[in-house]
Amino acid sequence: MGVNSNRVEDLSSHNNNNNHANYDTTINIQNHQLSNNNNNNNNNNNNNNMSNSYERHHVCLPPKRSTIQKLKNRLSEIFFPENPLHKFKNQTIIKKIILGLQFFFPVFQWGPNYGLNLLRSDLISGLTIASLAIPQGISYAKLANLPPIVGLYSSFVPPLIYSILGSSKHLAVGPVSIASLVMGTMLSEVVSPTQEPILYLKLAFTSTFFAGVFQASLGFLRLGFVIDFLSKATLIGFMAGAAVIVSLQQLKGLLGMVHFTTQMQLIPVLSSVFKYRNEWSWQTILMGFSFLFFLLASRQISARKPKLFWISAAAPLMSVILSTIIVFAVKPTSRQIPIIGYLPKGLNPPSSNMLYFHGTFLALAIKTGIVTGILALTEGIAVGRTFAALNNYQVDGNKEMMAIGLMNMAGSCSSCYVTTGSFSRSAVNYNAGAQTALSNIVMASAVLVTLLFLMPLFHYTPTVILAAIIITAVIGLIDYQAAFRLWKVDKLDFLACMSSFFGVLFLSVPLGLAISVGVSVFKILLHITRPNTTPLGNIPGTQIYQTLGRYKEALRVPSFLVLSIESPIYFANSTYLQERILRWVREEEEHVKANNESSIKYVILDMTSVTSIDTSGIELLGELRKMMERKSLQLVLANPAANVTEKLDKSKVLESFGAQGLYLTVGEAVADITSTWKIQP
Amino acid sequence: MGVNSNRVEDLSSHNNNNNHANYDTTINIQNHQLSNNNNNNNNNNNNNNMSNSYERHHVCLPPKRSTIQKLKNRLSEIFFPENPLHKFKNQTIIKKIILGLQFFFPVFQWGPNYGLNLLRSDLISGLTIASLAIPQGISYAKLANLPPIVGLYSSFVPPLIYSILGSSKHLAVGPVSIASLVMGTMLSEVVSPTQEPILYLKLAFTSTFFAGVFQASLGFLRLGFVIDFLSKATLIGFMAGAAVIVSLQQLKGLLGMVHFTTQMQLIPVLSSVFKYRNEWSWQTILMGFSFLFFLLASRQISARKPKLFWISAAAPLMSVILSTIIVFAVKPTSRQIPIIGYLPKGLNPPSSNMLYFHGTFLALAIKTGIVTGILALTEGIAVGRTFAALNNYQVDGNKEMMAIGLMNMAGSCSSCYVTTGSFSRSAVNYNAGAQTALSNIVMASAVLVTLLFLMPLFHYTPTVILAAIIITAVIGLIDYQAAFRLWKVDKLDFLACMSSFFGVLFLSVPLGLAISVGVSVFKILLHITRPNTTPLGNIPGTQIYQTLGRYKEALRVPSFLVLSIESPIYFANSTYLQERILRWVREEEEHVKANNESSIKYVILDMTSVTSIDTSGIELLGELRKMMERKSLQLVLANPAANVTEKLDKSKVLESFGAQGLYLTVGEAVADITSTWKIQP
Repeated sequence: MGVNSNRVEDLSSHNNNNNHANYDTTINIQNHQLSNNNNNNNNNNNNNNMSNSYERHHVCLPPKRSTIQKLKNRLSEIFFPENPLHKFKNQTIIKKIILGLQFFFPVFQWGPNYGLNLLRSDLISGLTIASLAIPQGISYAKLANLPPIVGLYSSFVPPLIYSILGSSKHLAVGPVSIASLVMGTMLSEVVSPTQEPILYLKLAFTSTFFAGVFQASLGFLRLGFVIDFLSKATLIGFMAGAAVIVSLQQLKGLLGMVHFTTQMQLIPVLSSVFKYRNEWSWQTILMGFSFLFFLLASRQISARKPKLFWISAAAPLMSVILSTIIVFAVKPTSRQIPIIGYLPKGLNPPSSNMLYFHGTFLALAIKTGIVTGILALTEGIAVGRTFAALNNYQVDGNKEMMAIGLMNMAGSCSSCYVTTGSFSRSAVNYNAGAQTALSNIVMASAVLVTLLFLMPLFHYTPTVILAAIIITAVIGLIDYQAAFRLWKVDKLDFLACMSSFFGVLFLSVPLGLAISVGVSVFKILLHITRPNTTPLGNIPGTQIYQTLGRYKEALRVPSFLVLSIESPIYFANSTYLQERILRWVREEEEHVKANNESSIKYVILDMTSVTSIDTSGIELLGELRKMMERKSLQLVLANPAANVTEKLDKSKVLESFGAQGLYLTVGEAVADITSTWKIQP
Repeated sequence: MGVNSNRVEDLSSHNNNNNHANYDTTINIQNHQLSNNNNNNNNNNNNNNMSNSYERHHVCLPPKRSTIQKLKNRLSEIFFPENPLHKFKNQTIIKKIILGLQFFFPVFQWGPNYGLNLLRSDLISGLTIASLAIPQGISYAKLANLPPIVGLYSSFVPPLIYSILGSSKHLAVGPVSIASLVMGTMLSEVVSPTQEPILYLKLAFTSTFFAGVFQASLGFLRLGFVIDFLSKATLIGFMAGAAVIVSLQQLKGLLGMVHFTTQMQLIPVLSSVFKYRNEWSWQTILMGFSFLFFLLASRQISARKPKLFWISAAAPLMSVILSTIIVFAVKPTSRQIPIIGYLPKGLNPPSSNMLYFHGTFLALAIKTGIVTGILALTEGIAVGRTFAALNNYQVDGNKEMMAIGLMNMAGSCSSCYVTTGSFSRSAVNYNAGAQTALSNIVMASAVLVTLLFLMPLFHYTPTVILAAIIITAVIGLIDYQAAFRLWKVDKLDFLACMSSFFGVLFLSVPLGLAISVGVSVFKILLHITRPNTTPLGNIPGTQIYQTLGRYKEALRVPSFLVLSIESPIYFANSTYLQERILRWVREEEEHVKANNESSIKYVILDMTSVTSIDTSGIELLGELRKMMERKSLQLVLANPAANVTEKLDKSKVLESFGAQGLYLTVGEAVADITSTWKIQP
């Protein structure tokens, strides 16, 4: 109390020196007080609940819970945000079984409602991607130094498994270029695929098995949130970069070239194109660009008139059939227009006996499995999320990881190597109008039929037509308008997008993604390390305190400095916050001196946005209070969050603030403190 | 309006079905409205500023600024939080020059006020650490495969430079074990120190030069905030771990052993101790433990009776003198009590001609420089901050980096290798009562005198006494009580502390630090990835909305679900927040149905704590609005922060919310929306 009366004297002496403007504001507070009292009276007349409406409200500690309870609650928030079991509550056992099946096998969700209208789209898209999967399977298997037929096997079993377990509607499953390339590089560094083909094949299947185990366990352990670190901005850049790279790689087919780089970056691909200029074949180029023009035109038509969607959907398959017939009729030498050529017949043989669980190469197989597994997962889930976002449905990261993992585990036992959702084929699938995962079953069936009977029919399909189809599909995924919107709204998001784009283009897909995830995480950390602190003013006639400068009607309250801290307080920002708050106080004191106003007595920290604190933060508050005391200022906390209050209490810092240092709102703090001054008018 | 009148009908039909409790709360809102109007009238009488006090306040966009202005403002907040130039404002030119000198050379801050009372402490502590610096310099130089005398040179020039530039009062500068060890390992992998000693020496000086350049540029670029990521919790663990390791390493001297591991981890050190048990010498052990007991006892006495502080301060130097006299008198063979022995005389020769700026080994020198530079900086600043925290002063990270960097650059030109603040010697310095950086000058002078004249006097100093001094110094830094407080207040901080402790103990100092920084950053990211969302209730008679459950008096407002989002919204949590908010809505609807209350019509998101948003977050809000609309709920935002409002506006999402979707406070939102219902009583 002694301290308080001192303060009153201080203030009154200041008031004597004050100019009129300042006096006005002091009146303001009196009015405020008055009106609040009036408010109180009114409430008393009308509602007994409000009898204590102008009593000061105390800051409460959250209800006490044991460490175990807190941990349990936190873990359930971290791992089960959607509370997956809520659907099972109050259901009959049969319903529970059905819901359980639907939960684990998404096929039971869309299966029962499946109709003929959907079947047509899935049939067309399934056949279209099948027409792509066969030549791609062959070329990607070659990238991985595996026999071509393994690429076809890998387009048969995994899509079937995925269609039962997967939650994406548009993901076209099969071998992909990046995972193939990496597996080929990592394994052939140790084992020669030409000298020890059986061992090499064994290692490939074993790596696939471990990739699957790794992927499935990530999902099972509910670590799906790691994919949340792929933001929309990152994906826009990733898609554009990948689209450019994939398009450029198709120049090999489009120009009819034989020699080409296996690298993925912009520069080696382009130099490759011009290095072997003599290999360009005008017949191929003519055919390729004609069909590319046809495909792009059909897409334009469908985009302008949505009713004619079937034109662009049917175009790829039509192009394959048409070009095959043309080439069959002309029968050029393979040098003029390269064709797919002879393919052996037969179905997936079991390969579980080829898995390799001991010996010197086990470590290599596990390492290769984890690396290709991560890459495959990243591509698969990024692609899955992209098309889910385009069509407004959710892809459950954990379930997807389990689906992709199980599909690879099953694949490794049936002569398949690492598969995932393919970027280019999913784009074709989406463009061809796929509606459900049934398109994967259609594709697998088509591959089955092909493997058994139709191999010879694809003999004359020119590879150039596949290049044209892929280019058409991926070009539509370059979303420069979205990139422009990012620039307009959020510069750092644009930076993440661009680093992902240029990273993919000039470095590599995983590196590009890693850099842009790094940029995104850096952005979060920057916001935490350098949080905003803004001085607040009172909006006259209310208890509202808002940013001075932003809200013109907000006024400084004399003798008070109200600061809002707009971030949790952590070790990473406690040094900064201390410096920044001391600077605010210094600047406010200078301002007060320059304008001859009443000097500040109280510094109120609005803690509403301080949603979390650590021991460094708690220490900062204790330190600040002492520092302010040395300047004969009192530090007041307003509205500390539940866990912040709890930690302040446990560390005894709360005690040091005392009753005069802790309020529920800034408004109550100002009103309560000024009311003690008004005892002496 | 059509929508609104629909809602009113909806609500009134609900009211007919309502129980009494619910009706009560509706009345509540009416009163609220009324009292506020009264408030308004009072204000009108007294103050014209308040005429619109109960009109609804609009959410303002922040004042318009160009991208360049924003960038400039943000950068100055990031790099110059303390506004270092403010002292220079409105000063005369002479005063400005003095302030500038003080800013760049802290010696001008403490120098003018230096008195004799401080000198005594600095003299004692300077001499004490000098008595340590000589044997440590010799042994650490050996660790780096350098001639022993280089270790002494490195204890002469760098401390002088640091005492002028450095802002720590207790940092004792010189060679340190970790940087020495790493430099020795990295260089000798490529160049043999025995076969090419001159090249090796050149590379060591060149690495030191690059370490200095790297350190100084980090400081110059104001990247000092990287050290903010070393939290107090981490430092407690780091200190305890380093203290244990350093103490155990002293067992070599304390047991009089000749063979010992150069590794830093617990297990090799302990196995080393017991492997060469036959080397233990009872004479050394007797002498060592006697002096260790003496030193620990003197520390205990000083701790209990603060007036007797000089006992513990003088004890180390006394021990050195006493033990040297004893050994000189007894003159044992070196096997019984190892002594420092013969040291050559002479001063630092210049070495700038030995710097190596071209040729095949330049890359090696740069790499070694950067690695040892980082390690030296980490130790130096961690130690500096530790003692600054113990004595309540600030260490400016950027200035420290420049000081340490310049000192190494100067050192590389005067036959010194990498130096920094040493953990063990700083602890001794602190314990011996050092008051300013003058203790470093005293130490350097003592080393100078020693180098020139006193070498023979240290001939008979037993190494065991140095071990005893170091152990006494570091044991006091194991702060188990602080670790216990961490456990009580913040479990994740305790985890960071423990990972730092065990990492240093079992892995290595840099790895231990890296792991605990990782844990700390993970904690920040976890809070961002899985933010709290809490339902709020109204405290009757006020405009205050607070956490339901925590504040018993807070009541649900019927027809409203008020949720506070306690984190910025980013790509990393937008998926989670969507799931979590939908779950709150679902659970609220179930609760309402179970209790037969009026169904919810409005979901109000209190955006106060959403201090930042990215494009994923903006998309989430747009998406959520649409999702709520499909459930015929309206989504309302309350109090969005300045930059959030700005981004929402730029992305056109703000428009879609409309006037009925954006309020300054939750209270105004509820009051304004319910007031439209009251048209029909």
